[in-house]
Amino acid sequence: MSEVEFVLSDVPSSEIDRLESFYVPLADCVRELVDATIRTTVDEDEARAVHAEVTTLVRRLRAAQIDGPAGVHVNEQGRSWSWGNAVIGRRNAAAPPLTIVHDPDGLAHCDVVLGAAAEGPPGHVHGGVTALMLDHLMGETASAFRRLTMTGTLTMRYRRATPLGGLRLEERIDREEGRKVYVVATVADADGVTVEAEGVFIVPSWSV
Amino acid sequence: MSEVEFVLSDVPSSEIDRLESFYVPLADCVRELVDATIRTTVDEDEARAVHAEVTTLVRRLRAAQIDGPAGVHVNEQGRSWSWGNAVIGRRNAAAPPLTIVHDPDGLAHCDVVLGAAAEGPPGHVHGGVTALMLDHLMGETASAFRRLTMTGTLTMRYRRATPLGGLRLEERIDREEGRKVYVVATVADADGVTVEAEGVFIVPSWSV
Repeated sequence: MSEVEFVLSDVPSSEIDRLESFYVPLADCVRELVDATIRTTVDEDEARAVHAEVTTLVRRLRAAQIDGPAGVHVNEQGRSWSWGNAVIGRRNAAAPPLTIVHDPDGLAHCDVVLGAAAEGPPGHVHGGVTALMLDHLMGETASAFRRLTMTGTLTMRYRRATPLGGLRLEERIDREEGRKVYVVATVADADGVTVEAEGVFIVPSWSV
Repeated sequence: MSEVEFVLSDVPSSEIDRLESFYVPLADCVRELVDATIRTTVDEDEARAVHAEVTTLVRRLRAAQIDGPAGVHVNEQGRSWSWGNAVIGRRNAAAPPLTIVHDPDGLAHCDVVLGAAAEGPPGHVHGGVTALMLDHLMGETASAFRRLTMTGTLTMRYRRATPLGGLRLEERIDREEGRKVYVVATVADADGVTVEAEGVFIVPSWSV
């Protein structure tokens, strides 16, 4: 079994806010660059010139960097950050720009606009991107920020192709049995539900 | 039901090769930039300076671009390309750098090295990224490049946390019943299997 270690940080929330004030807009701009790299039709000379510039920028950012992935941190004020997270990492330009809203009654939802980088079937969301987002959102719903949960099984039922553009994801805890938490979720466009999902999340015995 | 349209292209394969010769290395470099954006510790002035440069590059690439997502194209020589695909899109810097090998006996496999942008639990692959890759690979295995299939259900069983780094994915058709194709798959690190998956893929009635 691999070790999964969270880092207790002594960086105060004010400093995290300061760092995010310039690193997050940088990541948002790199996300635009990812989109433009897919869709551009500039000629070979210009593409190679832009490539050379990107190489320089990579070198400038790597002049000072951490050794491995970003990890998950929490400070003494209870603020947590996971800047590289594949779904909600605020400094991860490959992550969809998700903002999750947790309602007081246990329902959570999330509005997202997906573009060219999320494509699978022509003009539509890749089924795997749907799975990526649902896995994260359902896990977060299962844990309810008060306990550790791990994904046991995740089952998706694709009712029809999900178009690129604006989507709403909704998820809630359906029931709990011992250390098993059952979460249900949907993905919908303006015309209704496109994907239904059920996840079984486990509260590890060593954590309770 | 939304329309899913493939484009029959009159662009010859030699021209696709030429375009990929400079657009794909650009995307690979942007993928490095995504990683560096997560991991950099450069100071505020430098981060803002790099941000300004990225903004300029986005504008240069967008000076000529297609209107929407990249779509899926096939030409008369049978060459197909889906440059923006969220898993295998060669111009998509947000996609993991997957290369799928199809063995003659129906088994397919894929070696991939995942880094900071694929993180979920600290130092480990996000369960949703596993799902993203498996959805694509299993679908491709089900279709076997000779028929259209759509994902019906996809079930994953997480046996232990998958570490970031080098991984192997393997998938094969387990059985077929009418228009249903059952595919099984695994994700493994050097110590063995971390995730098992089963998918049911449907051959649409209108396609046979």
